Amino acid sequence: MSVLGLGRMGTALAGALLGAGHDVSVWNRSPLKAGPLLDRGARLAATPEEAATADVVVSCLSTYDSQQPVLAAASPKVLVNLTSGTPEQARGVAKWAASEGIEYVDGVIMAVPQGIGTPEARILYSGSEPVFEAQRGVLEVLGEPVFLGEDAGLAALYDLALLGMMWSSMGGYLHALALVGTEGITPERFTPMALGWHAAVGGFLTGIGTQVASGDYETDVSALDINAAGLALLVETSRAQGIGTAVPAALKELFDRAVASGHGSHAIASVIEEIR
Amino acid sequence: MSVLGLGRMGTALAGALLGAGHDVSVWNRSPLKAGPLLDRGARLAATPEEAATADVVVSCLSTYDSQQPVLAAASPKVLVNLTSGTPEQARGVAKWAASEGIEYVDGVIMAVPQGIGTPEARILYSGSEPVFEAQRGVLEVLGEPVFLGEDAGLAALYDLALLGMMWSSMGGYLHALALVGTEGITPERFTPMALGWHAAVGGFLTGIGTQVASGDYETDVSALDINAAGLALLVETSRAQGIGTAVPAALKELFDRAVASGHGSHAIASVIEEIR
Ligand SMILES: NC(=O)c1ccc[n+]([C@@H]2O[C@H](COP(=O)([O-])OP(=O)(O)OC[C@H]3O[C@@H](n4cnc5c(N)ncnc54)[C@H](OP(=O)(O)O)[C@@H]3O)[C@@H](O)[C@H]2O)c1
Ligand SMILES: NC(=O)c1ccc[n+]([C@@H]2O[C@H](COP(=O)([O-])OP(=O)(O)OC[C@H]3O[C@@H](n4cnc5c(N)ncnc54)[C@H](OP(=O)(O)O)[C@@H]3O)[C@@H](O)[C@H]2O)c1
Repeated sequence: MSVLGLGRMGTALAGALLGAGHDVSVWNRSPLKAGPLLDRGARLAATPEEAATADVVVSCLSTYDSQQPVLAAASPKVLVNLTSGTPEQARGVAKWAASEGIEYVDGVIMAVPQGIGTPEARILYSGSEPVFEAQRGVLEVLGEPVFLGEDAGLAALYDLALLGMMWSSMGGYLHALALVGTEGITPERFTPMALGWHAAVGGFLTGIGTQVASGDYETDVSALDINAAGLALLVETSRAQGIGTAVPAALKELFDRAVASGHGSHAIASVIEEIR
Repeated sequence: MSVLGLGRMGTALAGALLGAGHDVSVWNRSPLKAGPLLDRGARLAATPEEAATADVVVSCLSTYDSQQPVLAAASPKVLVNLTSGTPEQARGVAKWAASEGIEYVDGVIMAVPQGIGTPEARILYSGSEPVFEAQRGVLEVLGEPVFLGEDAGLAALYDLALLGMMWSSMGGYLHALALVGTEGITPERFTPMALGWHAAVGGFLTGIGTQVASGDYETDVSALDINAAGLALLVETSRAQGIGTAVPAALKELFDRAVASGHGSHAIASVIEEIR
C-alpha cells in the first residue's frame, strides 16, 4: 500500500493502514510531514513513481488540479482516488486510468480525519466494481465502504450533495448562534436545544423526500407561504439585531420565488421546483 | 380555555385541550373551520370578545398583523400568545398587555400540528414567569413547556434562530435531492444516506459552538479554505448539471468572504465572524 498526500486526511488514512498492520509507503510534496508516520513504521517514498511500485495506491491531495501531475508521474497499478472533486473530474481520471491500463476506483470520505478507521467513517465508492471488491478488505480499514455504481462520477456527485447539506446546516447553525448572541445567549446555552432541534428536523426530511418523489405537494402540516413569511421575519430581525443576512436572505429569495410560482399553499418540498 | 385562530395549528391546540378534558371555546374568522372541534365538544364563540370571557386565552393566528385587531377586541384576562413573529412584535404585545392589565406570556411552537399534545412537541415561552408557572398545567397539555426568561422577545428570538436552522437544512436537502436527481437518483435511494449524514452533521455542531464561544478557530479537522473550494465545486457542478445554485452560491459567497478576511486556515466556525 502507498498513500500519496499527507495532509490531515492522508495522514489519517496512512495511520489507519499502519494500525491495521499493513506495509505502507508514503509520499508528500513536503516530506517533513511524514515524520510521525515514519516513526510508526511507514517508509518514505522520494517520488510519486517510487510510491507507485506498491500494489495499491491511495491518493488524497487537496484538489484534482494538484493531483493530476502527481498521478501522471506515479502511474500506479491500482489507484484508489480519495481526493474530493466534481463528477466530471472523477470521470476524467477514470478515462485516463482506463487508457493507461490502471485499475481505478473513485472514493469520497464522509468523515473527518479523526473518524478514519472508526465505524463512524463512511467512504462512498464508484467506478470499477471488480476493483472495489478486490480491494474491499483494505478499504474496510479506512471506514465503512459503500459502492454506489459503475459511473465513476457518482461518488463525487453524492459527496457534493451531502457536503452541501452539511454546509447548509452549519451555515444555519452559525447564523442562529450569531442571532441569539445579539441578546447575550451563549453557544453553551443555545446548543443543547439546537441539537435536539437538528435531530427533529432530520425527522421532517423523509416526508419532504416522499413529496418530491411523488410531486404531490399537498400539506396538512405547514404551508410554504407561512414559512416564506417566517423567513422574511428572520431576515428583518437579523437586520434589526445588526447581524448579516446572507444565509436567510438566499433562502427567502428561493422560497419567495416558489410562492410566486403558485406554491404558497403547498408544502416546503415544492421549493425543489425552483431548484431543478 | 379558549383558542383564537383555527388554522392548522390552532385546530391542533384546541384539539389537544379538548382531549385533556378541558372546557374549550373557539373563535375563528371563518367559523366553518370549527366544525370538527364542535363535534368534539368545543363551544363556538361568535366574537373574540365572547371567547375572551374564558379564564385563559390562547391565540394562534398567522401573523401579529392579523392578530392585533383580534387581541384588541378580545382583551382577555390571561393571554398565551402562540402566534409566530419577531422579538420586537412580542415585546410590543407584552407592553400593550401590561398597559391593559392582561397577564401575558409569549410562546413559540417547535413542532408541527400533528405533534401537538405528544412528547415530541416542545413549546418555548418567555415573558411573565409567574403567569407561566400558574398556567404550566394547561401548557403541558400542548407540549413540553420550556421557560427561557422574562424578556418577552426571547421565545421569538429562539424561534427564528431555530427555524432558520430548519430552513437551511431543508434548503440543503432539497438542493441535494435536485443534484442527485440529475443523474436519476431518486429520493428513496438518496434519503437513507442523507438521514445518516444529517445525524452525523449534528455531531459536528457542538465543536463549532465551542470554537465560537472561545474564539479559538485552530483546527486539525478541516480548514475553511478546503471547504470554500468544495463549495465552489458544488456551485460549478450544480450549474453543469443544469440546476439552480441559490443555496450553495450564498454559502460560497459567505465562506469566500471569511477566507478573504484571513480565516482560510481556520475552522468553519470562523465564518461567524462574517455574520455577526
Ligand atoms: N479534512 C477533512 O475533514 C476532509 C474530509 C473529507 C474529505 N477530505 C478531502 O481530502 C482531501 C485532502 O484534504 P486534507 O484535509 O488532508 O487537506 P490538507 O490538510 O490541506 O492537505 C492537502 C494535501 O494536498 C497536498 N497538495 C496541495 N497542493 C499540492 C500540489 N500542488 N502538489 C502536490 N501536493 C499538493 C498537500 O501537500 P503539502 O503538505 O506539501 O502542502 C497536502 O498533502 C481533499 O480533497 C478534501 O476535500 C477532507
Ligand atoms: N403549521 C405549523 O407547522 C406551525 C408550526 C409552528 C408554528 N406555527 C405558527 O402558528 C401560527 C398559525 O399557523 P397555521 O399553520 O395554523 O396557519 P394557517 O393554517 O395558515 O392558519 C392561519 C390562521 O390565521 C387566521 N388569520 C389569518 N389572517 C387573519 C386575519 N386577517 N384576521 C383574522 N384571522 C386571520 C386564519 O383564519 P381563517 O381560517 O379565517 O383564514 C387561520 O385561523 C403561525 O404564526 C405559524 O407560524 C405553525
